[in-house]
Amino acid sequence: MSQTAVRNLGPATALACRECGESYDLGPRYACEQCFGPLEVTYDYSRVSRERIEAGPRNIWRYRDLLPVPSNVADTPNTEPGFTRLVRADNLAEALGVRTLWVKDDSGNPTHSFKDRVVGVALAAARELGFKVLACPSTGNLANAVAAAAARAGIRSAVFVPSNLEQQKIVTTAVYGGTFVTVDGNYDDVNRLASEIAGEQDDWAFVNVNVRPYYAEGSKTIGYEVAEQLGWRLPDQIVVPIASGSQLTKIDKAFQELIKLGLVEDKPYKVFGAQATGCSPVAAAFKAGHDVVRPVKPDTIAKSLAIGNPADGPYVLDAVRRTGGAIEDVSDDEVVDSIALLARTEGIFGETAGGVTLGSLRKLLASGALDPGAETVFINSGDGLKTLDAVAPIAKPSANIAPTFDAFRKAGLV
Amino acid sequence: MSQTAVRNLGPATALACRECGESYDLGPRYACEQCFGPLEVTYDYSRVSRERIEAGPRNIWRYRDLLPVPSNVADTPNTEPGFTRLVRADNLAEALGVRTLWVKDDSGNPTHSFKDRVVGVALAAARELGFKVLACPSTGNLANAVAAAAARAGIRSAVFVPSNLEQQKIVTTAVYGGTFVTVDGNYDDVNRLASEIAGEQDDWAFVNVNVRPYYAEGSKTIGYEVAEQLGWRLPDQIVVPIASGSQLTKIDKAFQELIKLGLVEDKPYKVFGAQATGCSPVAAAFKAGHDVVRPVKPDTIAKSLAIGNPADGPYVLDAVRRTGGAIEDVSDDEVVDSIALLARTEGIFGETAGGVTLGSLRKLLASGALDPGAETVFINSGDGLKTLDAVAPIAKPSANIAPTFDAFRKAGLV
Repeated sequence: MSQTAVRNLGPATALACRECGESYDLGPRYACEQCFGPLEVTYDYSRVSRERIEAGPRNIWRYRDLLPVPSNVADTPNTEPGFTRLVRADNLAEALGVRTLWVKDDSGNPTHSFKDRVVGVALAAARELGFKVLACPSTGNLANAVAAAAARAGIRSAVFVPSNLEQQKIVTTAVYGGTFVTVDGNYDDVNRLASEIAGEQDDWAFVNVNVRPYYAEGSKTIGYEVAEQLGWRLPDQIVVPIASGSQLTKIDKAFQELIKLGLVEDKPYKVFGAQATGCSPVAAAFKAGHDVVRPVKPDTIAKSLAIGNPADGPYVLDAVRRTGGAIEDVSDDEVVDSIALLARTEGIFGETAGGVTLGSLRKLLASGALDPGAETVFINSGDGLKTLDAVAPIAKPSANIAPTFDAFRKAGLV
Repeated sequence: MSQTAVRNLGPATALACRECGESYDLGPRYACEQCFGPLEVTYDYSRVSRERIEAGPRNIWRYRDLLPVPSNVADTPNTEPGFTRLVRADNLAEALGVRTLWVKDDSGNPTHSFKDRVVGVALAAARELGFKVLACPSTGNLANAVAAAAARAGIRSAVFVPSNLEQQKIVTTAVYGGTFVTVDGNYDDVNRLASEIAGEQDDWAFVNVNVRPYYAEGSKTIGYEVAEQLGWRLPDQIVVPIASGSQLTKIDKAFQELIKLGLVEDKPYKVFGAQATGCSPVAAAFKAGHDVVRPVKPDTIAKSLAIGNPADGPYVLDAVRRTGGAIEDVSDDEVVDSIALLARTEGIFGETAGGVTLGSLRKLLASGALDPGAETVFINSGDGLKTLDAVAPIAKPSANIAPTFDAFRKAGLV
């Protein structure tokens, strides 16, 4: 890839190591050469104002002055993710005995998960960095988002998935065209192969590997939107699902940035994390009081959260502990029950990840970790249409009748 | 149902027969007592202005002054449908040799089809008319929309579907709770039963039966949005799928209203209709020069358009002929090919209905009925996630490899 490409990454100024602080020029790098720590984008935020944000488009690009993307990013064809509904969930609040509850419903994104946000930012940055192919290893939502965003942008995609993926999940990515490779192996094998390819193919941007520092910044937009949609203020409590942990740390980062920039009032807020018990390494570390996250082998229906060795685990522990939050985990049965509760009370059909988050919220309420009197937001990061099998056992008809009014009357449905 | 209920239906003034013009007070009626013709809402539009619309919420309720709903409708919990993306489709336009092409992408609605619009209006009106249960016969999108909207509104839903419906479609509605009845029979049987129940249960609002005049008005919002999103002007050509035909006639009605109210410049526009060949009674009547639509027995993968006896068929013929448009139909293979084309060029995964519409657009271009130099909009009315089986045969991986860089290299994917 060309090192001489013109780089217009807006307010981004450099990459800095999250461990040792070493600074690097903006470029296609993701690990510190000194200590192998992860790199993070640093910024010059002098252009940010509420007025500029509010005058922007109704998608993540309204926050372009806070992201590593060119200032004209919205003019390039893109899937226009973000600015999803923040739904006031009074029915659910009443069912749970909570005063004020909001659902940030990211199933409203173009491919129906929050991944459209991170992929949108990764694509914009990758283009500026001179990459020619947008790639990823994935088992679901990320694959959809990468293939769709690349198609819309008119560039090539290359998606790698385990070959034992369900037929349905293959269809939802393959339909966008692009290169779509099934790999004989599990997700770890696919991930390893992706890193190898990224090392050899100079112009392939694996969004969650070699452009990860840019990609991850996209999750900040969830935090910005929650604050703006609440009328430029922070909630008291927010509950976020944990896969790699990146989303949680970036929402926390977004809240801190908004405070520093004076866009919201400085007030305490608590960040809570949610995991499925079948893949709960961060919850386990939190509960044990550890700083280190011990990898696990995932076994849960919440596949989109099934990362056994979460890269941002330690940073999640930091954010949760610093803000006075907590991390909880729930069984698969609790996940399904919470998907149903959200659908029945608010008409929102969430993915298993949404069930994990609401399930954990319920458990955090029961334990007293969450304050029922404080304003609470939780994230539904994906769409129930993508995880139908999970709820099939409980989503059944009330009755089966003959096609007559008499049969209807006798069924006692009135 | 109470005839003394206070009826706050905003700008709606009466119901008028579309055949004989007989006028009725606003109420729970849907057919003319004189001639059995369908009833339509009439309005007093004195409050409408661009300013009032633009100051409204980013959903269909910004058009509340043009709908039979209370002026405070947005304050009542609802799924907030509408204001979906109008996507400039330059890649697709280039592939088709068209100058300016837009996709109105209604898969972005809360339950991912345009049905959220009509159900939103039906629910708001039904509430004012004193109904207690929101009901429908359906085989898919409408069932999802009714169950979700009722859940969010905190009222009871009752959805009736044929008992041979695929398990997946049962799950996507049953998850919202409410009464969900499978009926031993085909869709016609279910529909007949729904009419019978509507006749007996005074407080059940079957959205597409006894509150149909209100429900149907919801489709006007697609037309309003297209015009507003184009900067308050009408496109030259619009291509709309035909099931009952209601959506097409209401988009035409919306355009006419905007002209009459001076909200857009008065200019000619052409309305085109799209059907699947396996259920193309309106296209057949159009091509034969008939005024009457002869019912057919549907046989197509585009199930959401499979209405063999479309209630608004004659009105569709009127609108299309009056504006100088045409109606085309396409085979199931063309439907699938067009779903893939839309996904590959624009990153939008449409339902089979979207494939029907784009497929028909392509055929209308080839025949010269559509002008490639004129600005064209087409509707993607639903989401590909709901009709995965249709594209499974063509959405396949590019390659299957072992998890090694050597295997990747040998597969010739670089």
